[in-house]
Amino acid sequence: MAKTAGQGDLPLLRLDRKSQTPLHKQLHAEISRAVLDGRLKPGARLPSTRRLSSDLGIARNTANAAYDQLLAEGYVECAVGSGTRVASALPSHVAPRARQRERQTRSAKAPLLSRRGTQLTAATRSADSVEGRGPAIGAPDVSAFPLKQWKRLMARQIEALPRDQLAYTRSAGYAPLRSAIAEHLGRTRGMSVSPKQVIVVAGAQHALDLAARLFLDHGDSMLFEDPGYLGARIAFLAAGVTLRPVPVDAEGMVVDATRHTEARAAYITPAHQYPLGMTMSLARRLALLEWAEKANAWIFEDDYDGEYRYGSDPLSALASLDASGRVIYIGTFSKVLFPGLRIGFMVVPPNVAGRVASARGFTDRHSPIIEQATLAAFMRSGAFARHVRRMRSMYEERRAAVVRALERHGRGLVDVEAPQTGMHVTVWLPHQADDTRVAEGAASAAPLVVLPISGYCMRPLPRGGLQVGFAQAPIASIEPAVRRIVEAVRTCKGREPGP
Amino acid sequence: MAKTAGQGDLPLLRLDRKSQTPLHKQLHAEISRAVLDGRLKPGARLPSTRRLSSDLGIARNTANAAYDQLLAEGYVECAVGSGTRVASALPSHVAPRARQRERQTRSAKAPLLSRRGTQLTAATRSADSVEGRGPAIGAPDVSAFPLKQWKRLMARQIEALPRDQLAYTRSAGYAPLRSAIAEHLGRTRGMSVSPKQVIVVAGAQHALDLAARLFLDHGDSMLFEDPGYLGARIAFLAAGVTLRPVPVDAEGMVVDATRHTEARAAYITPAHQYPLGMTMSLARRLALLEWAEKANAWIFEDDYDGEYRYGSDPLSALASLDASGRVIYIGTFSKVLFPGLRIGFMVVPPNVAGRVASARGFTDRHSPIIEQATLAAFMRSGAFARHVRRMRSMYEERRAAVVRALERHGRGLVDVEAPQTGMHVTVWLPHQADDTRVAEGAASAAPLVVLPISGYCMRPLPRGGLQVGFAQAPIASIEPAVRRIVEAVRTCKGREPGP
Repeated sequence: MAKTAGQGDLPLLRLDRKSQTPLHKQLHAEISRAVLDGRLKPGARLPSTRRLSSDLGIARNTANAAYDQLLAEGYVECAVGSGTRVASALPSHVAPRARQRERQTRSAKAPLLSRRGTQLTAATRSADSVEGRGPAIGAPDVSAFPLKQWKRLMARQIEALPRDQLAYTRSAGYAPLRSAIAEHLGRTRGMSVSPKQVIVVAGAQHALDLAARLFLDHGDSMLFEDPGYLGARIAFLAAGVTLRPVPVDAEGMVVDATRHTEARAAYITPAHQYPLGMTMSLARRLALLEWAEKANAWIFEDDYDGEYRYGSDPLSALASLDASGRVIYIGTFSKVLFPGLRIGFMVVPPNVAGRVASARGFTDRHSPIIEQATLAAFMRSGAFARHVRRMRSMYEERRAAVVRALERHGRGLVDVEAPQTGMHVTVWLPHQADDTRVAEGAASAAPLVVLPISGYCMRPLPRGGLQVGFAQAPIASIEPAVRRIVEAVRTCKGREPGP
Repeated sequence: MAKTAGQGDLPLLRLDRKSQTPLHKQLHAEISRAVLDGRLKPGARLPSTRRLSSDLGIARNTANAAYDQLLAEGYVECAVGSGTRVASALPSHVAPRARQRERQTRSAKAPLLSRRGTQLTAATRSADSVEGRGPAIGAPDVSAFPLKQWKRLMARQIEALPRDQLAYTRSAGYAPLRSAIAEHLGRTRGMSVSPKQVIVVAGAQHALDLAARLFLDHGDSMLFEDPGYLGARIAFLAAGVTLRPVPVDAEGMVVDATRHTEARAAYITPAHQYPLGMTMSLARRLALLEWAEKANAWIFEDDYDGEYRYGSDPLSALASLDASGRVIYIGTFSKVLFPGLRIGFMVVPPNVAGRVASARGFTDRHSPIIEQATLAAFMRSGAFARHVRRMRSMYEERRAAVVRALERHGRGLVDVEAPQTGMHVTVWLPHQADDTRVAEGAASAAPLVVLPISGYCMRPLPRGGLQVGFAQAPIASIEPAVRRIVEAVRTCKGREPGP
């Protein structure tokens, strides 16, 4: 099976004719390994390809191809009259290095990630422990997505796309998509936005990662909702930003415009606080804008699921009140379409739009063109608005079913906070209950997703709570699932039978 | 046309029935603006919707919808018996803020980008001046891409994709694509790689941006080829890394393993130095690995166009010699397929792969699933290898035509360095010529792309040169284009007729 040859300075070569790897590659690998591990010394002479091929019973071309590659890679050199020799310029330490290679172990002092990288992964691990297991609470019910229609639109866009659009294109995004997004925000969020202010990115997380780096410096501090969204926390921490936790109440982040004026930014989820769910009041929005002006600071408005407002239209964005270009508005299509699309956007003040776009170009260039063109067509065609309406009424029903079941089974035990918005509700536990343990106990409540509110907290909360995501739960599954949550609460309360 | 109403505390309202904006949105906008600019004071009473609708001649539902939205957004409040009033809790500073809003100007002390963001865009502007005008030198000829086949594969993948793949998926990438890439690297780069080491990203620039942040800290220093790739320079500078320029010669980066042991990394383009084009010799590769071990440092190997090797197979990667897990290998599909795809990859040592994947998840989650699945199918089907072969022979012909024309027209005037690889050649100018001016003069050489080598330099080069990209130049265009380059050289040499 394995043909071997020893010839001149050449050590034993092993070729396997049954291998998937072509013979010339095997020959190249054998000889280069012999050079690297010192069996073939610098200056050693190799047989001619004629001789080698006859010795090994291989085609001359095979030997030629292997030698060409060795020559191109610098393992051998050849001179008229003296044939092919192992390169003389190779360093003497080839052999020790190669022996080390054989060991296939990694030296103890080999570097690991940087402090910044370690911080990012450490934060990530802590996030995994809250959001990482099972389906994400923010993942929509993708089974309802009109994939066939998407496929048709995608095929049509590929046909219609001018060829030069396959090359590098504008880092701010595909112009028709930027226009469609600007129009959508005008129609649904009260924002008067030029397409030039819209930067297409790979989702809200990408927008946060960019915003943290473009608008803040290492060592800057910022106001952060507590409890607050972990993905944002990690993006800002990884950018070297210090977070100042600010409590939230029924009106959202408790803004005191006279404090924290040294902070350079605030991160908020005004349409639907993450994770608690309340909407930021108009008074607080105005106070935050006043603070930003006093502090000369940025506001990052994360409107991750504002499309899902039940019983009324989506609320106007805080950005629509921004008079002085301090709000960076972040939106995503992950919740209304599907996360695997990887398209979101940021809306930035006109005077920084050009800079943000060019800086984004040097982080990952731009978003994929076929996806962008398809999404633009999906929005233009009216399919987007239809899909949002459909999902809105589906989630509205699921939300109502969760609330009904919690009222029926949890009355007197838990307090439910369920605003007319989003894909999750908040369940406040009895005061003695540990929400992490309850959430673990409620793992069997799938397809409802149950996470402990304490996992989002920077400072301890007076009362534990659960975030209950219902996006993926068909109506029929909801009541039994809620009963399992209530059972888990009762169990953790100390096996009291409950009311 | 515009219907107006004044009623009770309500100021003059202007509704435009011909506008695209629905009447309830107009009504909402008019009233909220009146609150914000102080024309409607906190506590002021609004007319009933019945009264308002009859006064304005609009449907009662229209007035209801506007009031509901104002209520949801906190502009008004209503109590049993007292009707609808402007919210009393609004801060007193609403009016001044709103007047400022009318001015639509931005206060002078409003923040701009952070220092880090400014550095990124400043670097970007300097890069624009070299690489930003006209087609990029690294952009392939996308007209040859088999887009119809891609469309068919994409449609088939959309049909076959399990629905749950539309949701959030693994941040390291789609498993079949990671396998296909690992196999491809084994076949073409001599790398023995587990799919677990492959992290799918949005192209080489994205890989650089991630690598800079995950493996290096603010203030770290690193070795950088001089001249070298601007995109990498910007990514590392933006991450706060100090670059130590290291000269390159005919064997690539001039490594002195005993120096620079305080640096934490080196960035190299060993298959095809960017911009000069040489291949790093085996001796230098081994010396660099030795340096990395001494310095306990990382090596970032950017193999941006290694697929395009003419006359022999692609060279083995430096990563294939890595015995101790110090090489981060970066590849991209932008040059072999099309840049608008936005898929590239990094190959990292096994012991950090999990951390890198999870950290990437918190920068932009993952790459789009439909694109990843289509690319995996394209690679599996053999279409990828066919396309690469076709492009390779096309570029090989174009390169040969450029070299022939330069020999014919530029002999004695310029020196040509044209290795059997890549999508550009280097043209060294007469010693007195300013390469920036020559490149400007050669702008008419399109579809050849002509850039000055000095634009890539951190320290001045003894001799100016041009980078001449031929990827987009059909054979027939090449000779006249080269003649225009040579004319530009002659002109800048001082209107001497030349040899």
